[in-house]
Amino acid sequence: MKLVTFDDGRVGRLDGETVIALACGSTREFFERGGAVEETGERLALSAVRLRAPIVPKKFFHTAGNFTEHHTELQAVNWSHPVHKGIVFFQNVDAIIGPEDAIVYPEGLTRELDYELELGIVIGRSGKFFSPEEAEDHIAGYLIFNDITARDIQRREMRSGVFSFSKGIDTFCPIGPWIVTKDEVPDPQRLAMRLRVNGEVRQQGNTSQMVISIPHLVAYHSAQGYSAGDIITTGTISGVAAVQSDPFAFYLRPGDVVEAEIEGIGVLRNRVVPWSAAHDTPPYTNDLYSSTAG
Amino acid sequence: MKLVTFDDGRVGRLDGETVIALACGSTREFFERGGAVEETGERLALSAVRLRAPIVPKKFFHTAGNFTEHHTELQAVNWSHPVHKGIVFFQNVDAIIGPEDAIVYPEGLTRELDYELELGIVIGRSGKFFSPEEAEDHIAGYLIFNDITARDIQRREMRSGVFSFSKGIDTFCPIGPWIVTKDEVPDPQRLAMRLRVNGEVRQQGNTSQMVISIPHLVAYHSAQGYSAGDIITTGTISGVAAVQSDPFAFYLRPGDVVEAEIEGIGVLRNRVVPWSAAHDTPPYTNDLYSSTAG
Repeated sequence: MKLVTFDDGRVGRLDGETVIALACGSTREFFERGGAVEETGERLALSAVRLRAPIVPKKFFHTAGNFTEHHTELQAVNWSHPVHKGIVFFQNVDAIIGPEDAIVYPEGLTRELDYELELGIVIGRSGKFFSPEEAEDHIAGYLIFNDITARDIQRREMRSGVFSFSKGIDTFCPIGPWIVTKDEVPDPQRLAMRLRVNGEVRQQGNTSQMVISIPHLVAYHSAQGYSAGDIITTGTISGVAAVQSDPFAFYLRPGDVVEAEIEGIGVLRNRVVPWSAAHDTPPYTNDLYSSTAG
Repeated sequence: MKLVTFDDGRVGRLDGETVIALACGSTREFFERGGAVEETGERLALSAVRLRAPIVPKKFFHTAGNFTEHHTELQAVNWSHPVHKGIVFFQNVDAIIGPEDAIVYPEGLTRELDYELELGIVIGRSGKFFSPEEAEDHIAGYLIFNDITARDIQRREMRSGVFSFSKGIDTFCPIGPWIVTKDEVPDPQRLAMRLRVNGEVRQQGNTSQMVISIPHLVAYHSAQGYSAGDIITTGTISGVAAVQSDPFAFYLRPGDVVEAEIEGIGVLRNRVVPWSAAHDTPPYTNDLYSSTAG
């Protein structure tokens, strides 16, 4: 099943090019009810609705450094310290946007806007303290996550290790285009991944290259507890702008269109817009961080 | 006003030793409605209700290293890198517990359980991209946060910089005992702070020692957006167990009672219980982290 959120937050499932409306208040509620949700009887053309972020989870676990190639390429960028495999922190759930939503370039805060394609796991059943063998019972499906990152802020944050603000700024968390339930994903560790900017391939890989497999990642972080609908991402693949020999030729710019694609899941498309397209005020600046990070 | 959550999640305000029930579904809803909430007419003795965590926010911003003395003492512990001032990441909202709730010692995961007293700010009005001067309009009140931390896991995590799992394990996030609205806190930058373990004072300080003041901290992170009810903590003071010359004489043990006190806010009291007091299964272990963090 492809589970969608559309228009003013309604829930539905896709049947080809048709949205079949479901009688529940949110996709989180869909999972809390174990998927026991009726159809409303209403059917709409997919082209006639506006897809939204498929879910706003209670918690969004964000994984760093889980693909060997990306792990290796990062060492070339001279971060202040290594990013070890399986590191997980929390993503800002208020930065979530959906398919075709605008990524607003915060020109007053960064000059190094980067992309990172990731597979996101959606937790269907709450639980805690479980094993990799039990993890499967808690997984409901998958979606695409584009981990938009301000690399200049990340470098400053990483002097203290943390990467949070640099990835949590308003609109930096595109997810979608829908949740594909796991019955339609025969092998989640064998999905081709590809990210394009203005049609040009930038990242290319496969979920088979993960270091920590999905059940182990999900089980390990179960010590923090899961609520139904939580997301846990799985790390990005090689090819981000920051690792290029001339990164400024690759960083995102206003007007760019980013397409994040995972085999069997879909394509998540977002356009980068200038600050002025979303705000009436001059670009927001706040130098607290740089003035105190030394 | 002292705003409480009690029994099965009901909302009230304290009038001395009496709880005056309020007609709203949660304290988050209270703030979303701008405090425009009626009384139900019901009055209960405080001693007759069970206080719960005063709020479960959409986002819980967690500040590290914002007090000079704690910042200095941390340098003596030989972390893998410095913790710069004003660093903020997200706390696990599913680890939240309330006053008198048990902190469950996860014996299979850590041997170094520590405490950290912090003042938490509660955001009343949503907003983003605002200045320190505008921050006051977004602050609704204050509460106490005891940042329970597994130091051995933190040391492993900090090789990659992140501190998330070590502070996010189930029950590691006691908050309370209530939210004190700001009209009752004349100067939040002048509150005595004291944490006791089994009656013995371990941490002592004052909110006047913060490096980044409350309005600057709240404004800076507004680039990530706030929802009504969000919490942003302000960092701990000196005296944590990890910095003692014999930390193992100070780390928390099952049976310990921790009292986190802030002048004008109250006392947040929690007991540490052994794993077996909360679970029928043997202590949970999962060595993914240690096996891959090298």
